[in-house]
Amino acid sequence: MSAWVLPDHIADVLPSEARHIEELRRELLDTARGYGYELVMPPLLEHLESLLSGTGEALDLQTFKLVDQLSGRTMGLRADTTPQVARIDAHLLNRQGVARLCYCGPVVHTRPDRPHATREPLQFGAEIYGHAGLEADTETLLLALDSLRSAGLRQGVIVDMADARIVRSLFAGVPVDAAVLGRVHTALATKDASALRALTRDFPAASREGLLALVQLYGDASVLDEAAKVLPASAAVRDALSDLRQLASRLDGAKVSFDLSDLRGYAYYSGMRFGIYVDGVSDALVRGGRYDEVGAVFGRNRPAVGFSVDLRELVGVVPTRPLRAAIRAPWGEAAGLHAAIAALRGRGETVVRVLPGHDSEIDEFHCDRELVEHAGQWNVQAI
Amino acid sequence: MSAWVLPDHIADVLPSEARHIEELRRELLDTARGYGYELVMPPLLEHLESLLSGTGEALDLQTFKLVDQLSGRTMGLRADTTPQVARIDAHLLNRQGVARLCYCGPVVHTRPDRPHATREPLQFGAEIYGHAGLEADTETLLLALDSLRSAGLRQGVIVDMADARIVRSLFAGVPVDAAVLGRVHTALATKDASALRALTRDFPAASREGLLALVQLYGDASVLDEAAKVLPASAAVRDALSDLRQLASRLDGAKVSFDLSDLRGYAYYSGMRFGIYVDGVSDALVRGGRYDEVGAVFGRNRPAVGFSVDLRELVGVVPTRPLRAAIRAPWGEAAGLHAAIAALRGRGETVVRVLPGHDSEIDEFHCDRELVEHAGQWNVQAI
Repeated sequence: MSAWVLPDHIADVLPSEARHIEELRRELLDTARGYGYELVMPPLLEHLESLLSGTGEALDLQTFKLVDQLSGRTMGLRADTTPQVARIDAHLLNRQGVARLCYCGPVVHTRPDRPHATREPLQFGAEIYGHAGLEADTETLLLALDSLRSAGLRQGVIVDMADARIVRSLFAGVPVDAAVLGRVHTALATKDASALRALTRDFPAASREGLLALVQLYGDASVLDEAAKVLPASAAVRDALSDLRQLASRLDGAKVSFDLSDLRGYAYYSGMRFGIYVDGVSDALVRGGRYDEVGAVFGRNRPAVGFSVDLRELVGVVPTRPLRAAIRAPWGEAAGLHAAIAALRGRGETVVRVLPGHDSEIDEFHCDRELVEHAGQWNVQAI
Repeated sequence: MSAWVLPDHIADVLPSEARHIEELRRELLDTARGYGYELVMPPLLEHLESLLSGTGEALDLQTFKLVDQLSGRTMGLRADTTPQVARIDAHLLNRQGVARLCYCGPVVHTRPDRPHATREPLQFGAEIYGHAGLEADTETLLLALDSLRSAGLRQGVIVDMADARIVRSLFAGVPVDAAVLGRVHTALATKDASALRALTRDFPAASREGLLALVQLYGDASVLDEAAKVLPASAAVRDALSDLRQLASRLDGAKVSFDLSDLRGYAYYSGMRFGIYVDGVSDALVRGGRYDEVGAVFGRNRPAVGFSVDLRELVGVVPTRPLRAAIRAPWGEAAGLHAAIAALRGRGETVVRVLPGHDSEIDEFHCDRELVEHAGQWNVQAI
């Protein structure tokens, strides 16, 4: 096999796309900073047990394992950043109050999440720790929407909401092993009512009917009214529906839908969950929600809400932006040339010096102007 | 062991340092862009043989290995980005002319390079392919110096230069196995004349005397004159000394020193090599040089020059910059509040909304102003 063939679902990012990703990166980080989110950079490698603490089997299967030559212990290559940020909140910052944190870096998966997914997403995310009230959920949703807006997505954006407490309450008191639970989750996610009927045959009637009802509970806000009628009445269901209603009203007019059986994503969600969909993309571009238990394994069970988005996916969806054309400059030691070039670069211009013998080459930086000397002065003129 | 203990030589980067690294990242990428370098993002994982093609044993030992579950093949976690960029130049861009490329991303090492080094440097680098002339070496050096300048390092910077052709020419025609070669390199690097004398006992007299002379050949430009006298006369030595002299004269007044026995760094250098040192730091902050053979294994033996710098190391050396103080805003749905906050954020301000019950908390974003309502208008005022 040729030395330049990359592994499946692994790819280089070439100049114009890389530039675009870098611009998105800056816009998303600047948007988060505008909201007061502090940047952190957790490492790519950690001891496996801290990387996977409290996260469930799915993340374990997604995580590459390595042996640490210094300690002989097993390390993992991070497949998700949230557990690391929870560790940072719990132990390194250890603040009593609210901590708003954001990050942007690669994660690596042993297998692609979906048929055409990369195994190396570039994950941007923002999380807020230490506030249990709906305001934190609201801010997370508003920041996620603002992030997409800063990336150029202003239309065709839909926030699809669910709440992990609903499914969880329907399982309350039902003795069920992990394998069955997994199959029930799959049946709910695929809205497969007949599989669900078979799997829940021995469940208590209230659980069974509730789970079967969930499969129909997706669509606009009327879903919440319907859910209040058909789901077994419990404090958890009542709170979840009321929270979803309030959150939907605070999103500054964004389009909202509901899918109460939605369980996609990571196992650690404990409350409101959302995906943000964009026209023309079948999967959620942004995923987020509340995961109050995520820091428990690190000894601090703090309220937490957040979201993440893969910049490699985002770049394929947002409008492309043109690169500012560059200025061509000659090579040489002529008087004033270096100073003229430095001044232009200092003003943010790209100045490409033509190396001897390479006059008519073209690259990413299209040159529409050139630096020419006239009577001892260097001036920029159109080509 | 506690779940929050990280492996040795692996660390989180916490808010104020992370912000500073992000700022440096942008400054270095913008500086490279000003010179017309196109950004590329090679993957963290590749098949081991393409990651290590033509790079030597040292990089192999530094590289973590993983099994690809999709193919059963061995992959490596990149320990250096240059071989990847050479692959991109050779195969993906495949341009006839000059390609200027830059990158910024993490690399991972099985063991730390030095006693206090991180195993996860954040490598920024720039490379120029396709031009064999000294102009490419010159531009690389100027860009490296400009990069440090953009990071705030304006004083106490020294460029230390060498040329791989000199040592190589002294080995020409000497039958020596890899183990001895390695020990000779170590003796040269540590300027251990007695070890070198023992190792080269059976070498031809010219090689031996040349290698022993190298140990003394470090210091200012007079080293080049001395080298011309004491080293065996060969075209390679003559070219190397002449190139070093010319390059040193083109560095816009930067301080230059020479160390002709310097072999530190990667095995792939083929010509001029340099390290940039900064007052108060014992090791080179920037390393670079010419490595014309690096793309050969990918089928295109193009001339190449470049450099790299670890941002995690750089951040510890450059002057820190204060964070712009933020504005505190109340939570709530009051008329005009959302619009006032959005407008401030749109102007680049950080506006931290105080969540109910968290009025007097302090974080990275010190607030020196607050948004207050007066007669229906929201205004910013000093706290």
